[in-house]
Order: sequence, then structure tokens, then C-alpha cells
Amino acid sequence: MIFPSDTYKRMTSSPGGMKFIHEVIARSIKLKNEGKEIVDCGLGESSHGLLAKVIEAGMEALKKDEFYYVRPTQGLVELRAEISRQISKEFQLSVDSENVIVTPGAELGIDLVFKSILNPGDEVVIFDPFFIPFATIAITYGARPVFVDTFENGFLPSLKLMKKKISKKTKIIILNSPNNPTGRVFNKKLVEEITFFAKERKIYLLSDETYCFFDFEKIFFSPFNIYPEGTIVVRSFSKQYSMMGYKVGYIVSSTKIANYIKALQIPGWAAPRISSLMALAALKSSNPQSVIENYESKRDNLYKGLNEFGLVDYLPEGAFYFYLKCPSGNSLNFALELADKGLLVIPAFSTKNTHVRLSYGAIEKEQIPKILDAIESVL
Amino acid sequence: MIFPSDTYKRMTSSPGGMKFIHEVIARSIKLKNEGKEIVDCGLGESSHGLLAKVIEAGMEALKKDEFYYVRPTQGLVELRAEISRQISKEFQLSVDSENVIVTPGAELGIDLVFKSILNPGDEVVIFDPFFIPFATIAITYGARPVFVDTFENGFLPSLKLMKKKISKKTKIIILNSPNNPTGRVFNKKLVEEITFFAKERKIYLLSDETYCFFDFEKIFFSPFNIYPEGTIVVRSFSKQYSMMGYKVGYIVSSTKIANYIKALQIPGWAAPRISSLMALAALKSSNPQSVIENYESKRDNLYKGLNEFGLVDYLPEGAFYFYLKCPSGNSLNFALELADKGLLVIPAFSTKNTHVRLSYGAIEKEQIPKILDAIESVL
Repeated sequence: MIFPSDTYKRMTSSPGGMKFIHEVIARSIKLKNEGKEIVDCGLGESSHGLLAKVIEAGMEALKKDEFYYVRPTQGLVELRAEISRQISKEFQLSVDSENVIVTPGAELGIDLVFKSILNPGDEVVIFDPFFIPFATIAITYGARPVFVDTFENGFLPSLKLMKKKISKKTKIIILNSPNNPTGRVFNKKLVEEITFFAKERKIYLLSDETYCFFDFEKIFFSPFNIYPEGTIVVRSFSKQYSMMGYKVGYIVSSTKIANYIKALQIPGWAAPRISSLMALAALKSSNPQSVIENYESKRDNLYKGLNEFGLVDYLPEGAFYFYLKCPSGNSLNFALELADKGLLVIPAFSTKNTHVRLSYGAIEKEQIPKILDAIESVL
Repeated sequence: MIFPSDTYKRMTSSPGGMKFIHEVIARSIKLKNEGKEIVDCGLGESSHGLLAKVIEAGMEALKKDEFYYVRPTQGLVELRAEISRQISKEFQLSVDSENVIVTPGAELGIDLVFKSILNPGDEVVIFDPFFIPFATIAITYGARPVFVDTFENGFLPSLKLMKKKISKKTKIIILNSPNNPTGRVFNKKLVEEITFFAKERKIYLLSDETYCFFDFEKIFFSPFNIYPEGTIVVRSFSKQYSMMGYKVGYIVSSTKIANYIKALQIPGWAAPRISSLMALAALKSSNPQSVIENYESKRDNLYKGLNEFGLVDYLPEGAFYFYLKCPSGNSLNFALELADKGLLVIPAFSTKNTHVRLSYGAIEKEQIPKILDAIESVL
């Protein structure tokens, strides 16, 4: 009797490898249940834990029995004010708190943005490899992801290749730097070129800046700096402040765009209250320098081994991922083999099936030799 | 340059009075900022606060620095096991934890259900008056809300009127009992009639049971009892456990339906981790009898006054709302007048514009005279 929706059919056949993820994770859970130790380089999680001030803010909220909904739906007034203050400072632009919309995580923020902009038949330009939900959510709203290959360009966007994929139907170009899954950070010149092009053509830019804190070489540059009227910035508290379990992110955009998005944010789309209060405390504190140095050091140690194996030929400038070429050319098989050896990585993140993503966000330095051993054993 | 989506246009023209809500709330905020005291009978919030054990579970999660994502996406294994245990007992049916999907609030649960089932052109039968997001979310996915009037029937569904609205395109019938905004609870016979009809015609039932705890006369009956293969139950921790700010709800359905829904639940649709741990503690505790008695007593006191004014002619058996007939016949004007007198209520919740919803969930008994005074002053 069940008759899944067309949306269901579109979403479950979305490119990027969502099905592979389920298969590999199921295998790793099975192995764990059989008593095998698995080093988890699967999910995109950071490991440095909550700041003391953030835990304190959470405790305070519980002590005060803060049980009501966040209101207004677009976020606590104080939180949006603090975000707008910091964004204004960072971008040297005056960003009002009315231009900030707090969401229950960045992924639902992207959903809200696409819902307010995309029509069936619209095209969304995505650089391949890519964070899978970009394609899945665009498809939800009937739009078509148009992929620009970056495999031959060291996983950096090529303006020339991109221009070939632009049509009258192009509504959004997605920038995701520092990049998930490649760890690449797009330099200022590159971002400028894409942004000026988008501006000229009146195409929106969705700039997913979830990993902007993880920018080891200080390369990160946001298109919002030069195209605030058409750029929609999405950020998250999850990675920088290790607040994955608290589900709070935000959107920054022009007044015009923000008003459209707000009108669609029904109450269910509000962020949790305790998370909002913790996010405010996070913004008022700041991560110590040692946090980022720890990730950088994990990166350097892993790079040495992975480069020797010939699986990666560039040093990722940001995020906390390595995107590894599979010797067999089949990423699902490679990932399943690695799971059997005690290492969880995620295949694909691409229309191609040639690479796996290794996340070092949540691992300890002591686990690096185990990771390299597991990989070596299947080469 | 902005070009809002068709989804935007559909959602913002959704029936039920969403625009009115914004207008009335804006007025009340303006008045508050001018120093006026406003009794807030607007949002659907309960006021009894968190249980001690629930606060403790939250503190514990913070102390243990529980910062990771919930995994799997469909919810913490222990929480789903406890829900399935309690639901199995309540319904005298064996419900497996795989049939339970935890969501970041019930409203996003409804979104997920509609996304997995509805196609453009499908019809969703909704008894009018209604919880506005039912229509808004159905419209998001291109479906058409088909309203069955209950105004002439004391706000109880009429099977006869409903049958007239059923077509080959009817995909879902929505039951919401105890009802928001009317406070009515549908008796067993009525629920059975609708359910047997739906079962025979192979139409899904979405049973929104958010208020099942607020059932003063012990009338509540769930269609899941007799039609588990086609009923999708949505519940929330928000009202019963006063966990509005924590954003956690759940869906119970058949294995077949649950598998469809799970396949669409991308990671962004997971509930917050701290809220999930608090929800588990809530389920293992139980609300003291005095909680529900307090709401019942507020209902009784308000009913006396409102009935004398001639604004309501039935005693709501559940939820924490009164649905009041506006003497002028214009609910927006009535609500704006009341706001000026210091009382926030919400207009419409219907295709008609004749009633307002008064929520007594979050008010104290001491405020009741003020509420009645404000109303009397505009009659």
C-alpha cells in the first residue's frame, strides 16, 4: 500500500554515495558488535569538546529551567546581536542582526535556503567532489545539481570549466571552503573570480563556511566580503566549538534574502534554546590556539604516511579531512576492506566512485599509527 | 534580483492565518517595548517546567561533555528502545524500536512524513479549524489541503462531511486529538469510524498526539490501536514534559513506512543529543498527577468566565486551548484589540476568520482575572 513520494525517489537516488555510507557504517557496526575495535574516521566530527564557559552556560540554562521555545523563531535576540557584531567586524561590513537567522544546525539552514530560492528545473552548480546534502536537498526541491569536475585540478574549482556549466537556469553556485571532503581551501583570487562572475550574472552564491576555523594556512576568504547582496553564508557551531550534539548553526544574508528565508521558517525550524544560550557563550569566549594546532599536527602526521602510500598528493590546507584515491579504483570496496581491518572511512562524496574520505576530526594522535597500519594492510 | 521559489509563494499564502500571527505578535512586542504588561496566551507552551530527573540528565550530559552527534540519525538506541517499550504497553501491540524515529521536534517529524509520502496533486484531508503547519507543510510538497468543516458540529469531525471530501487523490487524513486549537478530544467511536474508513480505502492516517497527556476526561483514543499498518503517530516531549526548548519528538509507524521515512532522514534531521538524553530520563520518570490537575483547574476557571461572555459553549476536554468566537466576526481585529488591552491571543487557525485561540498552557492561575478583564473590556 505504501507509495513513496517522488521526493523520496529523487532523494534516495541522489548522487554522492549516500547509499554507500549506509552500507559501510552497517558493516562497521556489525564488526563492532562482534568485538572488533574500529578507529572511527567516518563522521565529520571534531574532538576537542566543549569550552568550559559553554558547559557553564548550559548548566546555567538548566538551573534556571529555561524550558520555553526560542522566540522569535529566527533566533534569540542576544545571540543574533552577537553574531552580527562579530560578522560585521570580520567582514568590515555593517551586518544587522536582522540579517542573521539561527537554525537547528547548518544542514537545516541549507534546506531553508534552497526551499526559499529553488524551483523545479533550476540548476545548482556544485564542485565535484562535494558534501552530499547539497545535491540531496537541491533535488528535494526539484532542482538539478550540475557538477563541475575538480579531480583534474587538484580539487580546486576551475573557472573555465565552471563557465561551461552555467546556463540561464543556473540559480545558485555553491562554494564550500575549507572543503568537505577534500580539505582544500580556496584562495582569495579564486574566490574573487567566481564571485565577480556570479555577481555579473546575478547568480546566488551559497557559501558553506562550516570549517572556516580549520584554516591552517590562513587562506580562507569569504565571497560575502565582495558580494554581500547575493551571497548566503551558512555557518555552524558544531565543528569550531565541538557542539555537534547541540544542533545550532546560522545563515547570514542580505536583508532582502533574509526576509524571504525568515518568512518560511515555521516554528519547528527554530534552534534549541539551551544550544542557543551555549552558542552565545561560545562566541563570547574563543578557542585557545592549541585547539587548532592539535588538528594541524594530526594532519601533518597523517599526511606523511598517506603521501608515502601514494594515496594523496597535496597537503589539505583546512577542514579535517583527507580525500584518498583508492588503488583499486572502487571506493566502496576499499572502504569495506578497511572496515574489516578496523578503520571506518566513507566512500565517494562524488559522482565518481574512486576516492574515500578519511576524517581525522575525532581521532586522537595515538590512533594515527593504527590508521596507517590498517591502510597499509589492504594496499 | 531575488526570485523567491514557488514553494515560498505556496507556503506564504498557506491558509490558517500565519500572516495574522505575525501581525498580532508584532503588535504585542511593540506594546511590551512601550512598557505595557501583556498576558501571553499566544504560543502553545506548557508551564510546569522540567522534571528534576530531566534537569539532572541534562546536567549529567554536560558534565560528561556529550558533544557528539546523535547516531544513528533516527535516534539514540536507548531512547528508541524505551519509547517502543512504552508504546507497546500503551497500545498492547508489539512495537519494535526500529519503528520509532526520533526527530528534532514533532513539527519537523510531520515535515519528514509528508516529504516521504506526498506528491504534487495529492490531497490531505484536514479538519477545520486546524494546526496551521499541517496545511503549510503539505503545500510545501505540492499537495493540496482539503478542509472538512467542523464549525457546525461542535468542532468534532463529521464522518458524513468527511466522506464528501474524499477522492482518489486523498493520500492522508489528519487526526489531531486532543485538538489544537479547539481543545476537543475525539471519542473512541468517532476515531474508530474514521479509522475503519481510512483502512478500507487504504488512506494513511497522520495522528498528531502532541497533547495526549492533556486529556482531562480520559477520552483520548489513538487510531494506531486499530490501524497500525497505515497510521503514523507523531508525538512530542515538548508539552507533556515542558521540553519546548529542547526540540525532541518522535514518529511511530509500521516497519514499511518507518523504512521510507528513515531513508529520508539526512543527518540534519537528527534530534539534539542532550535533548535525547533528557527525553530518556523523562520517559523513565513520570509527571505527578498534580501537573495535569493544575491545567484542569485553569481550564475550569477560564471556562466559567468565557462561557458567561458567550464566547465558548463547550468545555474543552483536552489540550490547553480555548477557541473563542469573536463577537465582531473578525478575529484579527479582535486579537489586535485584545493586545491593546494587554492580552495576546492568536487569530484564525482556520480557513475562516471568526475565532481566536487562547492558550492557557503557560499562564498562572493568578492571571485568569486579568485575562477575563481584558476580554470583558472589548466586548
